[in-house]
Amino acid sequence: MTLSEFDIIERYFAPLGNFRGPAVRLGPGDDCAVIMPPSNEQLCVSSDTFIEGTHFPVDAPAAMTARRTLAAALSDLAAMGSKPLAVTGALTLASVSPEWLEEFANALGNCISVWQSPLVGGNISRGEALSITWTVMGSLPQEQFISRSGATEPSDIFVSGWPGRAGLALQRRLAGQQCSKKIAQHYEAPEPRLELGQHLRGLASAMIDVSDGLLADLNHILVASDVGAEIDLSSFNFDQALVAEAGDEVLARRLTLTAGDDYELCFVAPPEHRTTIADLSKQLDLPLTKIGQTKAAKGLTFCHPPEGMLMEPLLLQSGYQHF
Amino acid sequence: MTLSEFDIIERYFAPLGNFRGPAVRLGPGDDCAVIMPPSNEQLCVSSDTFIEGTHFPVDAPAAMTARRTLAAALSDLAAMGSKPLAVTGALTLASVSPEWLEEFANALGNCISVWQSPLVGGNISRGEALSITWTVMGSLPQEQFISRSGATEPSDIFVSGWPGRAGLALQRRLAGQQCSKKIAQHYEAPEPRLELGQHLRGLASAMIDVSDGLLADLNHILVASDVGAEIDLSSFNFDQALVAEAGDEVLARRLTLTAGDDYELCFVAPPEHRTTIADLSKQLDLPLTKIGQTKAAKGLTFCHPPEGMLMEPLLLQSGYQHF
Repeated sequence: MTLSEFDIIERYFAPLGNFRGPAVRLGPGDDCAVIMPPSNEQLCVSSDTFIEGTHFPVDAPAAMTARRTLAAALSDLAAMGSKPLAVTGALTLASVSPEWLEEFANALGNCISVWQSPLVGGNISRGEALSITWTVMGSLPQEQFISRSGATEPSDIFVSGWPGRAGLALQRRLAGQQCSKKIAQHYEAPEPRLELGQHLRGLASAMIDVSDGLLADLNHILVASDVGAEIDLSSFNFDQALVAEAGDEVLARRLTLTAGDDYELCFVAPPEHRTTIADLSKQLDLPLTKIGQTKAAKGLTFCHPPEGMLMEPLLLQSGYQHF
Repeated sequence: MTLSEFDIIERYFAPLGNFRGPAVRLGPGDDCAVIMPPSNEQLCVSSDTFIEGTHFPVDAPAAMTARRTLAAALSDLAAMGSKPLAVTGALTLASVSPEWLEEFANALGNCISVWQSPLVGGNISRGEALSITWTVMGSLPQEQFISRSGATEPSDIFVSGWPGRAGLALQRRLAGQQCSKKIAQHYEAPEPRLELGQHLRGLASAMIDVSDGLLADLNHILVASDVGAEIDLSSFNFDQALVAEAGDEVLARRLTLTAGDDYELCFVAPPEHRTTIADLSKQLDLPLTKIGQTKAAKGLTFCHPPEGMLMEPLLLQSGYQHF
């Protein structure tokens, strides 16, 4: 069966345009989509490309590819404290499989609805490798965006969720080994922390989503904010499930610090917000773990590492580059 | 020399972030860019992917690739009557050539400045083929966007500029033949009709940019608007330079009707705007040629074709698909 670009859009993607949300005035199918952002709000925008074999495994299930890549893209909105308005998707296909397309589009339809992120446009091309570029747009009240550069000292450093679990799941997957559902779900079905991001407006002074690894991404905050940090590695001990499944505390911590496949949020907040953040953690039923403090002295230092863990190689390795 | 994603961004693309325009509150380098759209205006957005060998020639000069692809993307804003606010670019490189990157970035820097379209974000990946996905965002006053579906009858159908010239230049280029600068410039340095598009707010009832070919794109308007049209092929006779260079009136008209590489605007306007549109043509020093009229009877008909020109094969061929 030969499906043209127009056939594919018509059959699999046009129906997704029916999910609109309050801001969409004109959906897919014209030269542009038209959106009415909330009055007097600012607009956040980010584009991300995901290539099979580089950013997601070759032969990953279509549904997982849809969900993981869109979650990763929306995670950038979460990291600014922004609420999604709309997304566009540019899909390059190396081959045309109706089964793959159907599974991909179904999963995507579910994601855009759950994450309230209408698909307003995009295109389909044929190329040598499967890839997807998402552009995500969101809004937020004026000057309330949370950049990487606002951290001061002394402030608390937090991370959401269960960093390291997705990394362990990926490691097992690549090795062809089994992994418990509890751990695997963080890789297979990551959740962009959109609600958390919006709640942190006015609380967090700096924020980033953890895509390249916790140390590497925290380092972006420290450099942009011109501060240093001390990380207390014992703070991660709350996640005994990760240690149990990794079978080794050193491996668990290495994944926590460098894996970055969870798309959790790392943020800095002044100490006076500690109680509010603890309450928010309960309200969202999501761990918000204080993992350290900003310092005037530049660079990263550590306390309470697990026995036998060397930090130097981690620091060197922490700037994992997809390129 | 091995340049990482971060090196490439830092060296070639980060400097382009210095061009901001009035709407950009936070440029590239954070999780998202932040934009403040003009108060109470709507937002237009479109994403387009361009793959080497499919959408532009293999070994096209880097500067031409930057200019042509961004022009094509911005042309979608023009076709809505929208004014650019910002663009993001996702570049996938098959190889890393500092010379190519420098030429590409220099040309891009020129384009974003001339077209007042700040580059606010994007990413660089390594892949099997060179490709670029641009996402363009523009604004316009509420409910003033010009969709494809607003054409009524009887109304005038217009096209801007010199459709067919870029198609001839591409044909010559692919055949390894020379072409005059006058014709070649329309392929090598297309101009998104941004100013024209904005001037047509309140005048044009439907509009599209000609990317797939004039007949194919006009047909999108006719289908969306539920009208037909008669095209007067003698109206294109004003462009004698195209006929002279093509060496053949039938070839010239075939390119005019099907080539679509010019990124001109095709629009429909009620007859009462004829004088205003003629004045606009003088003001912008740009041909705005009345090429026909909408009709109640569906489909496309033609009058005054050049001698020996068959319309049936053109109609069949006119829906050129990149896929």
